[in-house]
Order: sequence, then structure tokens, then C-alpha cells
Amino acid sequence: MPVIFRVNMNDLTVRSEQADQTYRGLGGRSLTSAIIAREVPPTCHPLSVENRLVLAPGILTGTGAPCSGRLSAGAKSPLTRTIKEANSGGMAAIHLSTCGVQAIVIEGQPEPGMHYRLLVTAEGVTIQPVEDLAGLGNYDTVARQHQQFGESVSCISIGQAGEMRLPAASIAVTDIEGRPTRHCGRGGLGAVMGAKGIKVIVVDPAGGKRPRPADNQTFKQGVERFNAALMGHPLSGEALPKFGTNALANVLNAAGGYPTRNFREGTFERVEPISGEHQHDVIVERGGKIAHACHRGCTIRCSRIYVDENGQFVTKGPEYETIWSHGANCGIDDLDAIARMDRMDDDLGLDTIETGATIAVAMEAGVIPFGDAEGAIGLLEEVRRGTPMGRLIGSGAEILGKAFGQVRVPVVKGQAIPAYDPRAVQGIGVTYATSTQGADHTAGYAVAQNVLGVGGKVDPLDPQGQAELSRNLQIATTAIDATGMCLFIAFAVLDDPNTMQGICEMLSGYLGRPMDAEEFLSLGRKTLACERAFNRAAGFGAVDDRLPGFFQTEKLSPHNVTFQVTDQQLDSVLADLD
Amino acid sequence: MPVIFRVNMNDLTVRSEQADQTYRGLGGRSLTSAIIAREVPPTCHPLSVENRLVLAPGILTGTGAPCSGRLSAGAKSPLTRTIKEANSGGMAAIHLSTCGVQAIVIEGQPEPGMHYRLLVTAEGVTIQPVEDLAGLGNYDTVARQHQQFGESVSCISIGQAGEMRLPAASIAVTDIEGRPTRHCGRGGLGAVMGAKGIKVIVVDPAGGKRPRPADNQTFKQGVERFNAALMGHPLSGEALPKFGTNALANVLNAAGGYPTRNFREGTFERVEPISGEHQHDVIVERGGKIAHACHRGCTIRCSRIYVDENGQFVTKGPEYETIWSHGANCGIDDLDAIARMDRMDDDLGLDTIETGATIAVAMEAGVIPFGDAEGAIGLLEEVRRGTPMGRLIGSGAEILGKAFGQVRVPVVKGQAIPAYDPRAVQGIGVTYATSTQGADHTAGYAVAQNVLGVGGKVDPLDPQGQAELSRNLQIATTAIDATGMCLFIAFAVLDDPNTMQGICEMLSGYLGRPMDAEEFLSLGRKTLACERAFNRAAGFGAVDDRLPGFFQTEKLSPHNVTFQVTDQQLDSVLADLD
Repeated sequence: MPVIFRVNMNDLTVRSEQADQTYRGLGGRSLTSAIIAREVPPTCHPLSVENRLVLAPGILTGTGAPCSGRLSAGAKSPLTRTIKEANSGGMAAIHLSTCGVQAIVIEGQPEPGMHYRLLVTAEGVTIQPVEDLAGLGNYDTVARQHQQFGESVSCISIGQAGEMRLPAASIAVTDIEGRPTRHCGRGGLGAVMGAKGIKVIVVDPAGGKRPRPADNQTFKQGVERFNAALMGHPLSGEALPKFGTNALANVLNAAGGYPTRNFREGTFERVEPISGEHQHDVIVERGGKIAHACHRGCTIRCSRIYVDENGQFVTKGPEYETIWSHGANCGIDDLDAIARMDRMDDDLGLDTIETGATIAVAMEAGVIPFGDAEGAIGLLEEVRRGTPMGRLIGSGAEILGKAFGQVRVPVVKGQAIPAYDPRAVQGIGVTYATSTQGADHTAGYAVAQNVLGVGGKVDPLDPQGQAELSRNLQIATTAIDATGMCLFIAFAVLDDPNTMQGICEMLSGYLGRPMDAEEFLSLGRKTLACERAFNRAAGFGAVDDRLPGFFQTEKLSPHNVTFQVTDQQLDSVLADLD
Repeated sequence: MPVIFRVNMNDLTVRSEQADQTYRGLGGRSLTSAIIAREVPPTCHPLSVENRLVLAPGILTGTGAPCSGRLSAGAKSPLTRTIKEANSGGMAAIHLSTCGVQAIVIEGQPEPGMHYRLLVTAEGVTIQPVEDLAGLGNYDTVARQHQQFGESVSCISIGQAGEMRLPAASIAVTDIEGRPTRHCGRGGLGAVMGAKGIKVIVVDPAGGKRPRPADNQTFKQGVERFNAALMGHPLSGEALPKFGTNALANVLNAAGGYPTRNFREGTFERVEPISGEHQHDVIVERGGKIAHACHRGCTIRCSRIYVDENGQFVTKGPEYETIWSHGANCGIDDLDAIARMDRMDDDLGLDTIETGATIAVAMEAGVIPFGDAEGAIGLLEEVRRGTPMGRLIGSGAEILGKAFGQVRVPVVKGQAIPAYDPRAVQGIGVTYATSTQGADHTAGYAVAQNVLGVGGKVDPLDPQGQAELSRNLQIATTAIDATGMCLFIAFAVLDDPNTMQGICEMLSGYLGRPMDAEEFLSLGRKTLACERAFNRAAGFGAVDDRLPGFFQTEKLSPHNVTFQVTDQQLDSVLADLD
């Protein structure tokens, strides 16, 4: 049975326990949210001793189920003040699972200014002081861990942003190559890790055992069915490996839903140089790598390795969201500059979506002009130096917007809206507004039906049907987030019934008892309900499930549309889960 | 009948109207809150075109009722996001009343970057462009108005902070000498004025007529009774004229409720050089002025004129709250440095409470050390220059605290807690938590009974009885805020029944119909109810009526107490008004 480790940073002790009835069988988001909802006072300060940081692999992580290597991090968010789960690829979740870890729950707080490492092995968890790592970026931090512990360990770490407890700080996770390129990005969970005094968690799988299915035959059958469905889908089988997530740039731009210059327009006239197609050509020409997997067992391989003109590694991807947030959203069309910013964000430990959105609001305020790539890079340098401007950039769009007296600040519950304009893609607007997580496209990706024609077609400009669409997606997504599987399996889930059947077979085979789709989805509903209850107790209500006013008043080109979904429709989305 | 002027900044037009049934007979806070609650969407962005700024003299302002010259400003607050009323002394309210103005309602927004003056005369209101005033502080702004319009006009203006739309920006009101020393300080209403593009409102009373009581005999009888009670009370008759508001420093320090170094201690070991007694001696020795009235008709005269060693004017007061916020709360014991900061705050147009509290949080974060007066002055210089650090200082304690990852941030609903530690003065803690305005000592000044022994005695360390005490004070205060009378009349109200009788006689005489204390207090209840309804619709609920967690967990020296009033008691305070 996997173990829950309780790391007490008050007295620097560790104890382990078996999951009780509430936590038994849970993983990923279903476990992080259950723990936060039960153990953290909803009104506490997110950086206080009362908050907890939970790290949990998914239920299927480490089993060999394809694309199941995601690590969930959970806490009360310093950015949104809601409950928060952010998950990441990379190798750490598989290694944690191999070490027999169901979750690590980090509690309490050490003396201010202290920095610690958690070393996780098959033997357990130890706490070690690491003052020499203070102030380092993620790249230097993990390099030192690999020097000390070897290349086969994985790292979960924070950069300067997390140490500064900035509200947009991420938690980095190393990829197959041991680089800190994968992040639990959203909601400032890196600041919670910083407040707990944890600089890095090193996970050494040596001597551990990967979890074995109880019924290997059923499990294997599920794996095959599932993977065949994944590979047979045009997105997960073709577009994502070839062009990566940034295949979406041209698609969203054509749909008029590619937010440009802080959501002033729906198309970017200079999209071509930052498109997935162009990115593909640049990477191939320079000898980078496409179809790169961020963790072992990923068969989609949407990651890529981006190199400079001399073929030297710069960063992974960059991903669609990052290229948008630092690109079109800032009026920037320089892919190399965007890749540099992605690298800086990863090194500083900053959510790339929040950071790009914040720079765009700074541009709106006149700090630097739209399109000024070098100026934007300069703002990230300020984060590294910890200047007041750097702290504002690392605090997210809402806080910077307040300090600069701005009205056009695209956030929900304090979290920046990602790369799909809710006026041109009304279904995703419903998800932004009603998610328990603040604005989050991954919480219920209605772009699939609204734009991609996956899972059917729902007119993106028509407010009707979007509430139900978002609701169903939010429930299914929350269930997927429990398994450790990547959200990109969802395209196949939506289009090919074999995918869900494969998931159920893998779960049934692994657990050694039947699990059907209904039980699977009920896990999503239950998790959403506990998240909503936490948020309700933290003071969130219906008026928080709204988009900023300008989406209702400013028409977006080229369709000249506003967000039309009514408050009543928004309130209907998840109401029955309360 | 006085007139409501509607100033439309969208199309730069002005129209006037008689109050309808809802607004008829209202003034001060009762009018500003009624207008905001009815006309402003509760969830709108405070700096958006949908917000309105209302300026209103009190019901008795201009009548000759003693101490009735306060100007109420109302809007949705950029700082607290609640409904907000902040009132100020100075001459503008009397002049508005003389011009026949019941209220000025500023609606809409001009093109960004435009600056306008409203000129109010007995003939009406005109809008004039004033690009030459852009970027000026309040002192230069009003000096230019006096050059242009003569010494007898009064001004309502914003400094650089309001132009920058900073959340802690105040609205300045000129005093008898025409200096911008009196402020609608709290809640960032200067930022709303800045968002409306109004740099200054010049009020020229020439040719106007002060309102006359319908029943002059009853009115005069009330004036005499009221004033005799005021002058007979040891606080309003003796302590306040002689030592000013800062008479409280030694008193609160002795009570262990004088928040020191960002609320880390309840006594300041260096209180003597910043006490009211020392301040009195410095002012008298240097040839300044004690017992100074901030507006004509004030018989308490708690203001003073603070001069430098050469006898040159520096600033008014400074007041108790200012000396505390920039003094003990920052570990600073240099009265001259504090006076310079008060002058800078007044010139920049910043709430002195919020600003001092924000500097103290910056000190907590290590930006400058506690006690560093020159460093604190340097931070205010940054506000003038509009640097990122300056914007953070002008954004208030909560935002700066988030950008610097701080937990010990003493705010309620985003507004800084003033100069009475709620652990040592539990009654005022109830007011901070439950006020419709965010943390605000003037909303229900339980310090009177808790510490001063005015209106009876309620043990400041005992949580029992504080909820009811705060409730009654909040209702009475809200009623007083409708009249235009200064809150310092409340000491006499609490101790001498003649005071309330005098108020009722003045109101009855002025209105020409009987008004008793019950009707007077019902005005307070009604206003509070409409404010609470607005806040509820804006998303505020019971969990927002709480103090920050550290007041419940950190014991305050010297009494070693935490805040003990229960959530249930807090929820009982104003619940029946909903």
C-alpha cells in the first residue's frame, strides 16, 4: 500500500501513515483536494503556517498506463485564494509512485529564511538543510542535485519567484532529460512551497518498485485499447506529436479567438512567425527535437526541444499558452525572444500564462510598449533581481493591474485568463468563470467542441449549450486529473468510446475490482463538490463566478461579439454539486 | 431646495435635478450611500465607467450648526471593493451648501489622460479642461486655483496619487487658510476622482446663500444646548483643543493598545517624543498654532498648525492617526520627520493611515528597517515619481503585502487597520471586522468605552459586550455622518443627554418638523442596511467580517492577549439590518 508522508516543517520531522477511509484509493487532484478541503482552514492566509502543500501522483501513475505521469500539487492558492490543484508532467510523479508514495503533505513552517531539501527514496523522506541553494534558479538548483545524487533522480523545485513567495510562482518538475521544464504552473503554489522553506524535493527511485496491477491481463487489455485510441485520433496521434500544442495558434487565430494585445483583438496579424507550423520548421532546421515526451510512458509526445541558431538547448516547447502569453498577447512575434522568456520563466519558477498576461497589463499601463520583446525580457530580469517592478510582474495581472490603476485586467478569481478569448469561444468562458480554480482552460476545455470539432460541434459564438458543455467537461476533467493522466487524452475520450473503456479497464485491472465510466465520473463530481465547498467557506460565491466586465461591454474583432452567457446560465453549471 | 448636479464625464455635460423621494432630505453619508447603492452595479470595477463619485455636504452643513462642515465622498472603493464613504473637514462642504448643492454626482469617464476642473458657483457647475494642472501635487494645484479664483474659494482636489489611480489615493479639501490639509482619506476615493478625469473642484460661494432654518428659534436653542454640551465635555472642551487628536498617543500607549512596528507590540518605548503633549510644546515653542479649526463653525478646534524650527508652516496637526501610522507603527520617533511625511501625503493625496501601514509592512518585508525615517520619506518620494515601489506604497498594505509575500498584513476588506490594536481594545476590533467600510475606527469608535471611559466603561480585554457596543456605535455614527457633523461630537453625545437633544432640536428647527433621537438613529440603521446590501451583492459575506488570522494567534504585549470575540458574536453585530 502506498504511504502518505507528513512532513512537519515546524519541528522538521516526518511521519508516514496509511490513507484513512477518506483518502483511500485517491490520487492526483482527487487526493490533493480532499486533503486541503479537510485539513486547511478555508479562510487562512495561503502563506501562513496553517496552509498545507500536498504533492500526489495520480492513481495510475507509475503503472505503465500511457500518459499517466502527472504530478498534482494542491494548497490554498496565494493567487486565487481558492483551493488549488495544478499538475505537471515530468518524471517526479512516476518516481514518487516507485518509492511507494501516495502523497507528501507538507505542514507547518520553519524559521524564516531557512531552506530545506526533501530527499525521497524507497526508504522514506528526510529533511536536509540546503542554504547553498538559496537564491538559485531552477536550472542551477536541479543541476546541483544531479551532481550530488546522480542523473537518475528527479527534482521538484522552486526558483527565485517561489523563494520570494510571489503569487505567480510555479513548482518545477524535471523532465526525462533532468531539466526543470515542466511546471505545476498555476495559482502560485511555488510561493506556498517557498513559505514552507522547501527549495527542492529530490526523488530517487533506486530500489523502489513500480506499482503492479492486481489483474494484469485486464490492465494490459486496457492499455492496448487506450493507446490505440490515442494514436488513432488525429490530434493526439498526429497534430500534437508533429506540431506540439502550438498547433493551436493558427487555429485559434483563424477562429478569431486568439487574444491579442491584452485581449484587445481576436486575431494577431503577425501570427505566422509564432505559429506551430513555423516553430516546427525552426526546430527541425536547427536540429532540435519534435515529438518529445516529457515523461516516460507518454505516447503523445507533444513536447519539443527548442534550440538556438547554433543548435544549443534553450528550452522545451515552448507551449501554445506560453507562446501566446508572451507573444500575441504582448504583440510580440519573435519566437526566439519568446523561447528566451519561457526559459527565464522556467528558471525563475513563474507560471508562463500569468507572467505573460501580467506583462501585457503592464504594456496596457504604458510601462513598455506592446511588441517590445527586449523590454519584456527586461521585466523578467527584474523578477530575478527582486526589484519592486519584478515583484509586481511576479504577483500576477490582478495585483499589477491594481497598482497601475488598470480596468482591463483579464482575470477570474485573481488568475489570468489563458489563450482563448471567451467572447469568441463562449464555452471556455463558462469554464473560466465557474471553475473552482479561477480562470483555467484545462478545467473544462470547451475549445474542443467550440473550435476543434472534437466531441461534436457547439457554435463558439452562441451562448446556448455552453453551460452544459462546460459542466460535463469539468466533471470529466476532474476525474482525469485524479488518474495522473494528461488532459490531452481527452480528445480521444470525446471522439472514441474505446478510450474511456480503456481507462476503465486500466483502472479495473490496476485496482482488481470493476470500475465503470459512471464510477469514474463520480470521482470527478465528488472532487469538484469538495473544492466548491472549500471555496464557499473561503467566501466565494456566485458573484465570483463571473468574467471581468469588459468582456461584456467591449466587442471583440473580427466577430464583433461580447460574452453572452447569462449569469443565470453560469450559476447553473455546477450548482447541483453543492 | 438644494439641487443634485449630475456631471457626465462621457459627454462633458451637467444637468441638475431635485432629489426624488429616495434622496429627499438626505445628506452626507446617508445620501452618498443611497446614491451609490442604487446607481452603481455592485460588481463593477471601481475605476470603470460604471462607478460614480458622489460629493455631498451633510444635512446640517452650512446652517451654522457647530462642527457640521464635513464633506462626504462616496463611491465603490478601489481599495476595499465595498461601498465607501469617507468624510473630511475643511471649507468645501459649507461652500457647496452655500451654492445650493445637495450633491454632485460624477458619472462616466472622459478620454484617458484628460484633466478637468469643475467650477461650482451659486449659478451651477461647469466643466473646464485644465491640462496645465496635470501631475501637480495638491498644494500647487490649490495655489493655482486661488490665484485664478481668489482666496475665498475652496478646493476639492487630487494629487499625483489620485491621477495615478492608486488604491490609497485621497481627496483633499482645503481648510480655512486654503491649504489642502483635510482629506476624505480612506478607501482610495481619490483614484475614482482620477478615473473620472477630475483634477480639482473649485467651489466659489460668492453670491450664494447659506441654508436657513425653517424654525430659527428651535434651531438656535439646539445650537446653544449642543454647543454647551460640547464645550462642557472634558474631551471636546479641553483635551482636543489643547493637545489635539494626538492626546491619544500616551493614553493608548498606557492601555497597551498602541500598535507598534506593524502590530508586533502594544506599547512604543519611544512614545514621548511623538505624544500629543510633546507635540503641543513643540508647536507652542515654535510659534505654531494649537486649537485651530479646520472649518468655520468648529468649536472643538482639534486641528493645529505645525511649523518648523524657523516658524515656517509645514502641515496641519499632524493627527493622532498620522503620527501613529508613520511613527510608532514604523518604529519612528521623530515628530519633524512625521510632519514632513504628513505634508507629503497631503500633497500627493494619500490616506495617511493606509500609507503608514503600508510602509510598516514594507519594513516587515525588509525593504527598509523599522525606525528608518529617511527611508520612509524616500518611499514617499517614490510615489511622487511614480516608480513601481511608489505605486506599491500607494496601493495599500494588502497589495504591497501580496507582492512581498507577507502574512502579517493588518487589513480588513483590504483596508489598513488604524491606531488601536484590536487585541488590547476588543470593541474596536469588532468595528474593524464588521464595518461596511473595511477597517475603520471612525465607523464605531468603541475606544471611547474601552479606553477613554466615555459613555460608560466596557473592559477592553473582555470579548463580552463588545458586539452590542460596536453595533450601537456604528448606528449612531452612521446617523452623525449624515448630518455633516464631526465625529468628535460623539464624546458629548455619549456622556451628556443634552447633546442628542441639541442635535434633534437643530434638525427639527432646520427641517421645520419634529425629529427625535429614534428617527435620527433610524437614519443610521437605514444607511447601514443599504451599505450592507450593496456589499452583499458585491460578494461580501460573513467570512469577510473577520480580522486577519494573526490577531487570533499572536499574543500582544504587554497584556499578552489575542482577539477573543467569536465569529458568532461578529456575525450578530449588524445581522438584523439585512
